Amino acid sequence: MQILDGKSLSQKILNQLKLELEKYPNKPNLDIILVGNDPASLKYTQMKQKVAESIGIGGTIHHLSSSISDPELQSKVNDLNNDSDVTSFLIQLPLPPNLNTSEAINLINPGKDVDGLTAVNLGRLFQKDSNAIVSATPLGIIKLLEEYNLDLSGKNAVIIGRSPYIGLPLLALLEQHQATVTLCHSHTQNLKEICLSADILISAIGKSKFITADFIKAGSIVVDVGTNYGQAGKLTGDVDFDNTKNKVSFITPVPGGVGPMTIASLLFNTVEIWKRNNTK
Amino acid sequence: MQILDGKSLSQKILNQLKLELEKYPNKPNLDIILVGNDPASLKYTQMKQKVAESIGIGGTIHHLSSSISDPELQSKVNDLNNDSDVTSFLIQLPLPPNLNTSEAINLINPGKDVDGLTAVNLGRLFQKDSNAIVSATPLGIIKLLEEYNLDLSGKNAVIIGRSPYIGLPLLALLEQHQATVTLCHSHTQNLKEICLSADILISAIGKSKFITADFIKAGSIVVDVGTNYGQAGKLTGDVDFDNTKNKVSFITPVPGGVGPMTIASLLFNTVEIWKRNNTK
Repeated sequence: MQILDGKSLSQKILNQLKLELEKYPNKPNLDIILVGNDPASLKYTQMKQKVAESIGIGGTIHHLSSSISDPELQSKVNDLNNDSDVTSFLIQLPLPPNLNTSEAINLINPGKDVDGLTAVNLGRLFQKDSNAIVSATPLGIIKLLEEYNLDLSGKNAVIIGRSPYIGLPLLALLEQHQATVTLCHSHTQNLKEICLSADILISAIGKSKFITADFIKAGSIVVDVGTNYGQAGKLTGDVDFDNTKNKVSFITPVPGGVGPMTIASLLFNTVEIWKRNNTK
Repeated sequence: MQILDGKSLSQKILNQLKLELEKYPNKPNLDIILVGNDPASLKYTQMKQKVAESIGIGGTIHHLSSSISDPELQSKVNDLNNDSDVTSFLIQLPLPPNLNTSEAINLINPGKDVDGLTAVNLGRLFQKDSNAIVSATPLGIIKLLEEYNLDLSGKNAVIIGRSPYIGLPLLALLEQHQATVTLCHSHTQNLKEICLSADILISAIGKSKFITADFIKAGSIVVDVGTNYGQAGKLTGDVDFDNTKNKVSFITPVPGGVGPMTIASLLFNTVEIWKRNNTK
């Protein structure tokens, strides 16, 4: 068994980005719209900004009250669309339930949509358009698999979870790497049997240690997208690591697997977008 | 075995659309950009216009020379985007190989994109946005399955073929009907085995009679998207109908299955788009 070390690769990517940015007299900005005071969202937002700063990316956190209306949120999105100093931005999710998430997201200028969540970028991805900005978590997973030279062509990939942020864009990327992809979700009836056919199993369910050895094909690759916080605040994945580690060929740990790759990919996107516009 | 009778359902849909349009003093238009003189494209374009006319939809065929440039094609797209008499239009595919298909398609105003092929509409579909305009063939297939009250929830659906016009939007629709979906293609290694797990098998390969009884799970539903023309000009599907018909529970014939549903769904989209704007 070999660890797919997202912590190490993310550090390598961040170092490369830092070196690259040092060549330029100006720098990209990553702005974040944060609505309300959800502790996890506050923490993630601060972490993104801190890592961005550490490699020379600027940006402002626009912290809005949880009581704002849809038009107020949309007005903020339009402000950032029109502000030439804001080279890219994202809306920290989840938004408070009274707000229309997809309307706000789809208002983002696709050229500044660093999270790749607008319909335009999701559609471009499925069209295999190289201009597509790809959602950070799926992009990070692919970068991690590529780092270990894992050939996906003709392999059976099984994704559990079908969000437009993770499962669906990941399906497009795996298919474009020539894998045969099965998309499973809460209505899937024979989940264990399907997982046992997987050469590559990717779990984005959100149930701590749900995936045990009896779901795992011997010698397969397992990618754990789960970020589940237990009673003591301890982070666990969807995969029971200790129970499965001796059955797999490669596996991502939690923490230290997909999580750090997500931030590295977000900042990779920030720099890519900025370079596109900087050289125009 | 029961036939999924696309010919009959398409006629029913066309009759409903005709009755609906008779209530209005004005009528929608479906314009078509046709480039070059490919005989199949000429035939399809004329057929679309003829069926459209028969139910009270107008529209012009813009027949351009195969020698036009990308800017000339894009200029025509912009003309139709800006012409308020053109309520919706499509570019007949395939375009001559010297032209950039995806650039031309993505220039279409998403609100007039009756074929649902722009990145915006494809992305909206994957976002489960009810404003998405859905590509006609996948939409027709779902309408046909719904007509026979076939419950897809929790069923294993296998799609062979991954074009952004058919396989990928169909995947989104089947997943949204709660099916577990597997996407197969030219790199899939164990195609027969995967097909044997399918409660619903949809083939969009383009190989005449490729799918024989040994690919079919007993009692399954088979949808044949293939349109293959033999030496004598005879149309056959991807599925060997005579060889498989006694093993399936439901099957689409070719001709008379998916083909007529595609035209009916295209005109359904034409009317839907027009009603959205007509009532605004």
